[in-house]
Amino acid sequence: MEGVDHLAHERSKAQFDVDELKIVWAGSRHEFEVSDRIARLVASDPVFRKDNRTMLARKDLFKNTLRKAAHAWKRIIELRLTEEEAKKLRFFVDEPAYTDLHWGMFVPAIQGQGTDEQQAKWLPLAYKMQIIGCYAQTELGHGSNVQGLETTATFDPQADEFIINSPTLTSSKWWPGGLGKISTHAVVYARLITDGQDHGVHGFIVQLRSLEDHLPLPGITVGDIGMKFGSGAYNSMDNGVLRFDHVRIPRDQMLMRVSQVTREGKYMQSNVPRQLVYGTMVFVRKAIVLDASCALSRAVCIATRYSAVRRQFGSQKDGVETQVIDYKTQQHRLFPLLASAYAFRFVGEWLSWLYTDVTQRLQAKDFSTLPEAHACTAGLKSLTTSATADGIEECRKLCGGHGYLSSSGLPELFAVYVPACTYEGDNVVLLLQVARFLMKTVSQLVSGKKPVGTTSYLGRVEHLMQSQPNVHKAEDWLQPSVMVEVFEARATRMSVACAQNLRKFPNQEDGFAELSADLIEAAVAHCQLIVVSKFIEKLQQDIPGKGVKEQMQSLCYIYALSLIHKHLGDFVATGCITPKQASLANEQLRSLYTKVRPNAVALVDAFNYTDHYLSSVLGRYDGNVYQNLYDEAWKDPLNESVVPDGYQEYVRPLLKQQLRNARL
Amino acid sequence: MEGVDHLAHERSKAQFDVDELKIVWAGSRHEFEVSDRIARLVASDPVFRKDNRTMLARKDLFKNTLRKAAHAWKRIIELRLTEEEAKKLRFFVDEPAYTDLHWGMFVPAIQGQGTDEQQAKWLPLAYKMQIIGCYAQTELGHGSNVQGLETTATFDPQADEFIINSPTLTSSKWWPGGLGKISTHAVVYARLITDGQDHGVHGFIVQLRSLEDHLPLPGITVGDIGMKFGSGAYNSMDNGVLRFDHVRIPRDQMLMRVSQVTREGKYMQSNVPRQLVYGTMVFVRKAIVLDASCALSRAVCIATRYSAVRRQFGSQKDGVETQVIDYKTQQHRLFPLLASAYAFRFVGEWLSWLYTDVTQRLQAKDFSTLPEAHACTAGLKSLTTSATADGIEECRKLCGGHGYLSSSGLPELFAVYVPACTYEGDNVVLLLQVARFLMKTVSQLVSGKKPVGTTSYLGRVEHLMQSQPNVHKAEDWLQPSVMVEVFEARATRMSVACAQNLRKFPNQEDGFAELSADLIEAAVAHCQLIVVSKFIEKLQQDIPGKGVKEQMQSLCYIYALSLIHKHLGDFVATGCITPKQASLANEQLRSLYTKVRPNAVALVDAFNYTDHYLSSVLGRYDGNVYQNLYDEAWKDPLNESVVPDGYQEYVRPLLKQQLRNARL
Repeated sequence: MEGVDHLAHERSKAQFDVDELKIVWAGSRHEFEVSDRIARLVASDPVFRKDNRTMLARKDLFKNTLRKAAHAWKRIIELRLTEEEAKKLRFFVDEPAYTDLHWGMFVPAIQGQGTDEQQAKWLPLAYKMQIIGCYAQTELGHGSNVQGLETTATFDPQADEFIINSPTLTSSKWWPGGLGKISTHAVVYARLITDGQDHGVHGFIVQLRSLEDHLPLPGITVGDIGMKFGSGAYNSMDNGVLRFDHVRIPRDQMLMRVSQVTREGKYMQSNVPRQLVYGTMVFVRKAIVLDASCALSRAVCIATRYSAVRRQFGSQKDGVETQVIDYKTQQHRLFPLLASAYAFRFVGEWLSWLYTDVTQRLQAKDFSTLPEAHACTAGLKSLTTSATADGIEECRKLCGGHGYLSSSGLPELFAVYVPACTYEGDNVVLLLQVARFLMKTVSQLVSGKKPVGTTSYLGRVEHLMQSQPNVHKAEDWLQPSVMVEVFEARATRMSVACAQNLRKFPNQEDGFAELSADLIEAAVAHCQLIVVSKFIEKLQQDIPGKGVKEQMQSLCYIYALSLIHKHLGDFVATGCITPKQASLANEQLRSLYTKVRPNAVALVDAFNYTDHYLSSVLGRYDGNVYQNLYDEAWKDPLNESVVPDGYQEYVRPLLKQQLRNARL
Repeated sequence: MEGVDHLAHERSKAQFDVDELKIVWAGSRHEFEVSDRIARLVASDPVFRKDNRTMLARKDLFKNTLRKAAHAWKRIIELRLTEEEAKKLRFFVDEPAYTDLHWGMFVPAIQGQGTDEQQAKWLPLAYKMQIIGCYAQTELGHGSNVQGLETTATFDPQADEFIINSPTLTSSKWWPGGLGKISTHAVVYARLITDGQDHGVHGFIVQLRSLEDHLPLPGITVGDIGMKFGSGAYNSMDNGVLRFDHVRIPRDQMLMRVSQVTREGKYMQSNVPRQLVYGTMVFVRKAIVLDASCALSRAVCIATRYSAVRRQFGSQKDGVETQVIDYKTQQHRLFPLLASAYAFRFVGEWLSWLYTDVTQRLQAKDFSTLPEAHACTAGLKSLTTSATADGIEECRKLCGGHGYLSSSGLPELFAVYVPACTYEGDNVVLLLQVARFLMKTVSQLVSGKKPVGTTSYLGRVEHLMQSQPNVHKAEDWLQPSVMVEVFEARATRMSVACAQNLRKFPNQEDGFAELSADLIEAAVAHCQLIVVSKFIEKLQQDIPGKGVKEQMQSLCYIYALSLIHKHLGDFVATGCITPKQASLANEQLRSLYTKVRPNAVALVDAFNYTDHYLSSVLGRYDGNVYQNLYDEAWKDPLNESVVPDGYQEYVRPLLKQQLRNARL
């Protein structure tokens, strides 16, 4: 059976050109080609094998990760890869490592917050990896509330130095990736204190370990914070703990692009706008949204292929059971996730545009759209990461019992993904920020202030408070304007209801706290509207190939209609749709499932993931699941011996009733 | 700070007697005392330590589990524990092990399906653990569809033996716990074939390994199926793979209580009713529901205590930040889970009653209530396990970033719990069974057949199709009869709507398949009604102490109202409640959160879990979280050396720009 494609029949059913969709998914032909080439490069290199990851004890896993990171860097140099290619290579190596923080946080922090001189001094070292850096912000006692950090950086004017100190146990830096065992340097966030005055949290470059023997420098206590969720997963990363006992650094290691401390110890602001930080935020969150589409699409790819292979129950007339993907219950859980993967991809693409837009406006000192862009990216980060974490676990359950095996790839995908719901802003905290912005926008409508960007629909509040969709039969739901307006109406009515309820409280902050659960739901409604709108806009753009366009249309409406189904209470209770229209929405949803069904496997093939990247026996391209599950099993260390280690001491005495005398 | 109770202030706020609630939670004073005594016994025994579990490589973990199992058995013998106490001891050891299957599946299978002679022969050996058994049912190709199993047991009349065989790869037994490395025997399920005729799936006792050297017997290929979700978790279990190559067993090793094969090879049914299997099913599912309440309550206990310790943001007037448990967003996610833990406990208690009832009826050959009892237990198994799996992960997220650490206990609790959604009936498959029963019940209403047990409300279909709750202000929701009737009305209307839609299909099976997603929702509505009803019935029973009763009332209404909130679409679209009443429900829910808040820590203390059993730094009884998180970190194997293994080979050459020559 070697080489046989067990999914060939599925693939032959597709009603569109997979190669065309691959380009759409990748974003451009160039993107597709680079990704495809680098993915294959990684997949064919034995150093990058991943299949044994979950079996390794922590130290072995970590050491193997160091090896991969070094090998990756070696290949990047040997092959003279561009920055874009190098980034893709690290991406396809697909294992959390200290290099993620070096390239993703340490270098950008210096680029964004360092002065020209600081950049000239530190960046060349970092670019060549002569130093390795991490980003030491969160502490044992403070994560979301950055302003509550306790580490201090006190200026000593006599020595022209800062004294970095951890005054309490809870001020221990806690979580920074790459910190525990590898980083030689860190950008450390600490409260700047000059002349007894606290100026709030600022960034400082601090060397942690000797460049000669890698030992921690005097005054520095540093280590790994221990095992995290899952086997493999994030345990390849040395998330760290760090304490400072009055560690001195030169004054010029404070990142001084925005604020400075002079030789005399005077604290000053530069004329660089503080809003610059928003640009970075949009950039980082765009990347997180695209990561979400990536993680979700992996899970969906595995679950879809396996659902087409797996048969259980059903028509046994020809002795063949039903493919589980043919069950409506399976489709009802799987296809909305497939649609979400595409939806998140397209909204991520749009965020790339938003980032360009924000950057240009910042350069022109136009800060007017920043609060809206901030709220929008915060909301989309929260929405997409929560949906992805839940979606991965749902895909695992869709694979039945076998999804519980590490060889399915899904447990590790889940364990490695879930921190995205917490890092770069806890998802609940972010939604409250969105809600705050929405409440402000609504309250300013009275004064005639025009809402911008993704909130501009609120300018049509009077219309949306009473609009009714023109839906009388199931197909009526397939109108872009109808769909967008229904989502706009729901978001508007939920925001307005919150605003009205808030007004009943004498103290707005008390009201905000009391109603926060409702406010979060209003924020979610707003964010879902954005995703639906951007998906529909994408359809109206440049999708090549009639077949591809039809599939994207089906997925777009599946995404929107399944949200209506899931949040039916919102839509019906606010009078946006009637129960009858809700029932028509379900009917339309079911008929879209039928349309997507023959294309399902091709729709996940379009992600163009290698078997190496997927790392899932259930999600193999060739669908040869059972033979490979069976073969994988024997590789477990427990199978190294037929009689297990421990039998003589702990099983035989029990069977032989000699336990009483046994030493245990 | 040693010995200081950081949660003492929280505990002093409780408005009820925790000791009284401990008895209610345990079910009786006797239950409480046994559990308390055995839990402490396990917690104080160093062999049973759990804190290093997630750091061990597979083989070390497994060996340690063998040690614990042997030690547990030794203690059981030494202390002459009763069967009840022995069971509790295994429970509090809290690590999946082969003994779970021996005592939980192998022994009961022989008790239930063996003849008197078979029981006399095999049970004494099993009781003394002179043989160790497992339950080999599921195969690589078949899980939920037991009737599709492929393993064959062909009777050879000449030799008076059965030939057990695995004809295909997919017929390999796959998943049975205890099979991979330890069991000497198994109850194997195989298609019985006599004289060329297939009689369907039956159970057979098969010896797998030599009792002398533990090697697999001829014709038997057996091993472990490899790593599963998480570190620690279910990896202490040797879930196994097993193939038979024409293995012969004597005829008297077919379990013959219900069906027999005679010496001549004739297949016969005994007069023992086949319905006996329902009794076992109710028993097993009752245990699963109680396990759900147990797992969920552990997670809730951890999240509640940590939420009372953790402070972030908020009023800094006295320099102290707000406890996160004081945020309404936190309460809105946490308190419904706390309420669910109690709800599942009480419905599990009721299932114990149902089991007694079913057993008595079986003895009296009254099979009339069996289909209803079967549907009810199937639905409750599905409902409680799904809610618990999601609830554990939600509790993990409620602990913010630190919930991602293994030392929080939550990742492992999740990983070890989730298979409950799949084993003993996939949750979706089970809900479809419930739906099928509901549709049958509804269709029989016309003919005047009176629905029984948990479906008896459907007898009032005409009233429930039009009833309106008497709710005009928030407090009106606190009426038992109002609440139950709203849930009855919703369940009725959803079932009736499905039945009406089904009628539109010429072929009922096609209709059932097409509408399966709606049918599942109707089944969920029915099951939620059961849980709400049983909670309300519990309140009307014998709860001692006014304070305790008030808390249980609050939790009961939190459970019900949060379900209304979550499934608002169901309630509003079916006209069971108005949008205005929905809004009053939310208002009432918020005020109940406020009532529960001061009691939250005491409400989880009532579970009486030892720190050993919880195995969570975040959930420690004394709330001394930060010092212990910090101390735990240093125990990770990565911290055994300051400079990590791999630095010389893979990090130094990189820092020193000597990678080109390095051998990686």
